Amino acid sequence: MLVRGVKEMKDTTFAISETIAVLLAEKKYRSLRDILTTMRAADIAIMFDGISETKLPLLFRLLPKELAAETFVEMESDSQELLIRSFSDAELKAVVSELFVDDAVAIVEEMPANVVKRILLQADPEMRKMINEILNYPDESAGSVMTTEYVTLRPQMTVEAAIKRIRRTGTDKETIYTCYVTNDARVLIGYVSLKSLILAEEDERIEDIMGTDIISVKTFDDQEDVAAVFLKYDLSALPVVDNEGRIVGIVTVDDAIDILEEEATEDIEKMAAITPSDKPYMKMSALEICKSRFPWLLLLMVSATFTGMIITSFEHALAAQVALAAFIPMLMDSAGNTGSQASATVIRALSLGELVFTDLVKVVWKEIRIAVYCGLALAVACFAKVLVIDMWILQIENVTATVALVVSVTLALTILCAKIIGSAMPLLAKKVGFDPAVMSAPLITTIADAISLMIYFRIATAVLHI
Amino acid sequence: MLVRGVKEMKDTTFAISETIAVLLAEKKYRSLRDILTTMRAADIAIMFDGISETKLPLLFRLLPKELAAETFVEMESDSQELLIRSFSDAELKAVVSELFVDDAVAIVEEMPANVVKRILLQADPEMRKMINEILNYPDESAGSVMTTEYVTLRPQMTVEAAIKRIRRTGTDKETIYTCYVTNDARVLIGYVSLKSLILAEEDERIEDIMGTDIISVKTFDDQEDVAAVFLKYDLSALPVVDNEGRIVGIVTVDDAIDILEEEATEDIEKMAAITPSDKPYMKMSALEICKSRFPWLLLLMVSATFTGMIITSFEHALAAQVALAAFIPMLMDSAGNTGSQASATVIRALSLGELVFTDLVKVVWKEIRIAVYCGLALAVACFAKVLVIDMWILQIENVTATVALVVSVTLALTILCAKIIGSAMPLLAKKVGFDPAVMSAPLITTIADAISLMIYFRIATAVLHI
Repeated sequence: MLVRGVKEMKDTTFAISETIAVLLAEKKYRSLRDILTTMRAADIAIMFDGISETKLPLLFRLLPKELAAETFVEMESDSQELLIRSFSDAELKAVVSELFVDDAVAIVEEMPANVVKRILLQADPEMRKMINEILNYPDESAGSVMTTEYVTLRPQMTVEAAIKRIRRTGTDKETIYTCYVTNDARVLIGYVSLKSLILAEEDERIEDIMGTDIISVKTFDDQEDVAAVFLKYDLSALPVVDNEGRIVGIVTVDDAIDILEEEATEDIEKMAAITPSDKPYMKMSALEICKSRFPWLLLLMVSATFTGMIITSFEHALAAQVALAAFIPMLMDSAGNTGSQASATVIRALSLGELVFTDLVKVVWKEIRIAVYCGLALAVACFAKVLVIDMWILQIENVTATVALVVSVTLALTILCAKIIGSAMPLLAKKVGFDPAVMSAPLITTIADAISLMIYFRIATAVLHI
Repeated sequence: MLVRGVKEMKDTTFAISETIAVLLAEKKYRSLRDILTTMRAADIAIMFDGISETKLPLLFRLLPKELAAETFVEMESDSQELLIRSFSDAELKAVVSELFVDDAVAIVEEMPANVVKRILLQADPEMRKMINEILNYPDESAGSVMTTEYVTLRPQMTVEAAIKRIRRTGTDKETIYTCYVTNDARVLIGYVSLKSLILAEEDERIEDIMGTDIISVKTFDDQEDVAAVFLKYDLSALPVVDNEGRIVGIVTVDDAIDILEEEATEDIEKMAAITPSDKPYMKMSALEICKSRFPWLLLLMVSATFTGMIITSFEHALAAQVALAAFIPMLMDSAGNTGSQASATVIRALSLGELVFTDLVKVVWKEIRIAVYCGLALAVACFAKVLVIDMWILQIENVTATVALVVSVTLALTILCAKIIGSAMPLLAKKVGFDPAVMSAPLITTIADAISLMIYFRIATAVLHI
């Protein structure tokens, strides 16, 4: 018996991998096999990903057939490739035949062409057909993440016949907990949960107990929309239909969870000016990471030229009043921070489907009110801070109450502008078909900085007569 | 029949709410009821949340009992409160008796004390006991998100007896797809999926077909860990056990999805210097949003004082070479951006469980290599940019090749420092028990800014002899 809490679980994985290293060195294969069969595929995969290339094929061959396939699915793609290259054709066939179609597709998508060819050659004809069908859908579409292994029932069947059919065909299906009812033209006309089948009488007809309020997605719908449907309706599986309403596949809840996590990670990366990648951080080389970060840094560096130009054009003011320079970092940081607050909130609300473009006016109006509260409070705090800290405690030369006033008024106006830009730009980006997450912190910061400095120097030159 | 793609779905909700407004005005209650019963609870809830306070109780009473409870669960808490206040005791009892325990708990947690008292009064004694039990667990613990409605089986039962038991007791259970096997002391000793029950022979014994590689969490484990387990093992439900290994509840996958979304939103908010809130953006007042944003803006504004002090202490250098000021925004922005890239990556990897504290050295070493690649490339680009754009095209006064060199070298060193700080601080925060997400963009930016300016002026004064 293995009852494990989360914390112990992590420790166990570490402890076991040491035991396994020792047993492997001593060639105690029977004990190794016994240990591995008590473990979950996900844990074995984590351990295997950390094992040396020479030992991996040997250990993998110790796994029973079904566990081997489950483990294979969970492994990183470079370990998968290594294994496939070490497999004989018969071994490859054994693993491929145990895979679910959507897992096979996910693996094929990551492999180089010659490996893909070998996999497809070893897959049985029906599997090959299904893999190719799914591969034809565009990346990140519902069709590309669905599986074609689901249970279909007919409306005239009795509950007894349906359960018999499930018992006969269910083993290889990704889920049997929701079955789909189709008519003669393969059009989806209803669904039955296994729960309702179990709770119904044996002689009831499927058409009398099936649900007809079908929620489905089209093959070309975006995977983000697919995940949003799961989030909204708490489904365990979601049928994918073609333009004629015929069912062509299903997406299961475990895939929906992966999509949600992937999309959240993508959003976070884009919001931090990083080109998203499928690979986990520790698996990427420094050069690969550099490639996903450098273009944004370059773009933002060049666009900061405009901010520099603003300072240059007010050089005479700065020369006359060098004390003004001391407040540039605070104004720029506040502009950036307040703008990112607004953009992060709006981008997340867009991702969760809480906002649509038509809310633009409502959102901007809300941000204006927020800016008034925050801006006034912050301006007062700033005024007090400059008087107390900069003038009284630090006694910085040339900082006067007038300078404090200029800085505080600039701050309030900056916050107003940054909140409007930060909230409006993601919505506008979405409207014209860009990813709203790109309109976030770094880009908003650059724009807000420029505006902030412009306001600062205009007010300063006017008020201080420089 | 209602086959709906995602896009049509949204339109339908809008269109139907207009129809309903008209029918309501014409008092066509029978047609209203017919329309509502074809809709999904989640859609009705969205529509109800937008309906006027006076009409809501009327419309709600048109729903059949079960759909009414399902819809109630999906509604916003202010609409729920409004409805409860309009309910007679009998109506409240009818709704409460249809609720799952975990949903009842979620509702109770949002209500004011007098409403809670009414709900508990109308719940039957067993339900009341279960609600109180779950309410006793700390916020965001596994115990607080679990439900106590699951199917338990005994090891000696036959498959036939087990299915009979499920048929008898399954209606009110949150899930029947995974059943839990306990011994006489209520200790969890195994699990059986409904799939394996359906595929097994009727006379097989539960102990022979049950799985014993149980994955479970403890009642006081954090909900984030609970969600991580779902992500890793693709479960449909996860048992929650006490310190003696006795099962006290289960968490279902739909709740795990909600936790994952909640945690991702929290991370994004913290990374944008916002105090997280459970309420959706559009439901929060401007003042509430202001309260979640203002403290961070104030903190960051005050901490920018240090950056200002650095500029002040090099005031003589700035006065001698005002051209240096033009590059302050570019250096500050690059420092902030490159630091946030590192911190966002590390924070996300921590959330997904891809990183632990002991990876600190590996991570920092990786970021140093990234910084060398990115820093050198960006420094070269910056040098070229200053020469071509600032000197040649814009002809900014006093910008020389030496200035370009100072700026470029500063940029490279800044990137190195920002990457190290950005990657190390979230890991250190996690180690000492803070939320790593707090160590993100805004705070890292403030620190990176200060370091960047320090490097800039030190190099500038040394090289330019000012």
